[in-house]
Amino acid sequence: MTNRTTAVLGLGAMGSAIAARLRDTGHDTVVWNRTAAKTAPHTEAGSRAAPTPADAAALADTILVVLLDHASVREHLEPLAADLKDKVIVNLTTTTPNQARDTAAWAADHGLTYLDGAIMATPDMIGTPASRILYSGDRTAYDTAHDALAVLGAADYEGEDAGLASLKDMALLTAMYQMFSGLVQAAAMMRTVGVPAAATAAEVTGWLGAILPHLDQFGAVIDERTYEGGQSVDFTRAAIGSLVTAAREQGVGADFLEPLLSRLDELSATGRGGADWTSVTEQLTIR
Amino acid sequence: MTNRTTAVLGLGAMGSAIAARLRDTGHDTVVWNRTAAKTAPHTEAGSRAAPTPADAAALADTILVVLLDHASVREHLEPLAADLKDKVIVNLTTTTPNQARDTAAWAADHGLTYLDGAIMATPDMIGTPASRILYSGDRTAYDTAHDALAVLGAADYEGEDAGLASLKDMALLTAMYQMFSGLVQAAAMMRTVGVPAAATAAEVTGWLGAILPHLDQFGAVIDERTYEGGQSVDFTRAAIGSLVTAAREQGVGADFLEPLLSRLDELSATGRGGADWTSVTEQLTIR
Repeated sequence: MTNRTTAVLGLGAMGSAIAARLRDTGHDTVVWNRTAAKTAPHTEAGSRAAPTPADAAALADTILVVLLDHASVREHLEPLAADLKDKVIVNLTTTTPNQARDTAAWAADHGLTYLDGAIMATPDMIGTPASRILYSGDRTAYDTAHDALAVLGAADYEGEDAGLASLKDMALLTAMYQMFSGLVQAAAMMRTVGVPAAATAAEVTGWLGAILPHLDQFGAVIDERTYEGGQSVDFTRAAIGSLVTAAREQGVGADFLEPLLSRLDELSATGRGGADWTSVTEQLTIR
Repeated sequence: MTNRTTAVLGLGAMGSAIAARLRDTGHDTVVWNRTAAKTAPHTEAGSRAAPTPADAAALADTILVVLLDHASVREHLEPLAADLKDKVIVNLTTTTPNQARDTAAWAADHGLTYLDGAIMATPDMIGTPASRILYSGDRTAYDTAHDALAVLGAADYEGEDAGLASLKDMALLTAMYQMFSGLVQAAAMMRTVGVPAAATAAEVTGWLGAILPHLDQFGAVIDERTYEGGQSVDFTRAAIGSLVTAAREQGVGADFLEPLLSRLDELSATGRGGADWTSVTEQLTIR
């Protein structure tokens, strides 16, 4: 615990959870929200409310920005440049890597200290062991704000490039949503023969759980870049072709698997049908 | 253990593993393969080799068919109809649900007893606790052959519709390949900033492992079919839109996520943007 003061700009579900957690762990907390009514639960619980972002910044050493999107971040921070000198700005708003880099460049232009954060948690997870937040940008800002950040969830510093936290977050969310779409399609397929989605979800959970420990093998193959041995492009094309056929036979759209099949077709058509199928990783970076 | 004899038609990697496991667990085993040389390791280890599929069938009570594909199954079984009377046919060749149903219909036309199997294991897993084989079709055939089938892996009988084992297998493989494509895209994204795929695979494994236990919630929402509450179509569209942008910013193709985004766009465009995003399950069955 330090005697620093943390401002939270934005009291949506995530901002509120963060302000509450900071307060509950003994951090001096100032809150600001565009709609002032949302500050009431926080002032009743002992936090101070500031009437403007500039007032909040003036009262604090660390400014946590938890707004709707990149546009609202810039709208609120740009008039504040002079007020943020010698403060630590931590932007926890969800943005793309390049948006984070843009804001970092704006901060650098104004001599400000900027850290970008990507929250891998829902608001109700903040402060629990399941909460994890990735950070990237100014290392000194990370170290200075660490006492406050550490109470929100496991904190990982990813590097000086302000886009890294967002990029890793988005890479992991990409994997998550593809797993989700796989479940949805499996549920649609099994429902055609009367199997409830709950039963399919249980099967998918068990099956993917058994396979997860083997994903590291793909990582090693991709890193070698030789793509020799393993399951071939042509074998995988045939397997996925059967899956597409099976879905259509049941009257279920197979669109979620079609892009992977197209990429494998590209590899095969260019003489690489015998390579390990994870060589599709290379195709993804060629346009 | 019974005093039945099992024939294995086809000694590819999977057929060989199955024949070896049966023999090693004390089952009387007859093998046949189109290229006779592949029978040598099996005869040396104590199995009998038959010169033709009809000879193999004549010597056995249960006929396990482990061939290349549906066409080779039909090519080899059709001339054998008379030889298969009063035998149990178990087709373990990978086929689509409708191909399994076709072969079951052919068997019924000839008064034969047919069981279709879907192997959820690689050859080296046969006989280990990680091996699982789904069966569907004639229940009596399943019960009669059970002693032999049980040594190959956990045996699950899915129902009388011969296509069920294949369908469930393919639904689970569909979920698996979508998880795999998510890993591949995540690895491609992180490689653009110098992160090895092995490190990304480890991150994805941990992240998906933490999320897996929550998949059952989606199953329950899909079964209710009201799609109220939960994460909305419009929220999810925005989130996936950001993921697509983030991939493209890094020079990585976002094609794997585009079909899901298109389905969510369809829902939103037809006034269902506020529904739970898993309502995309309904879209998959409307063409």
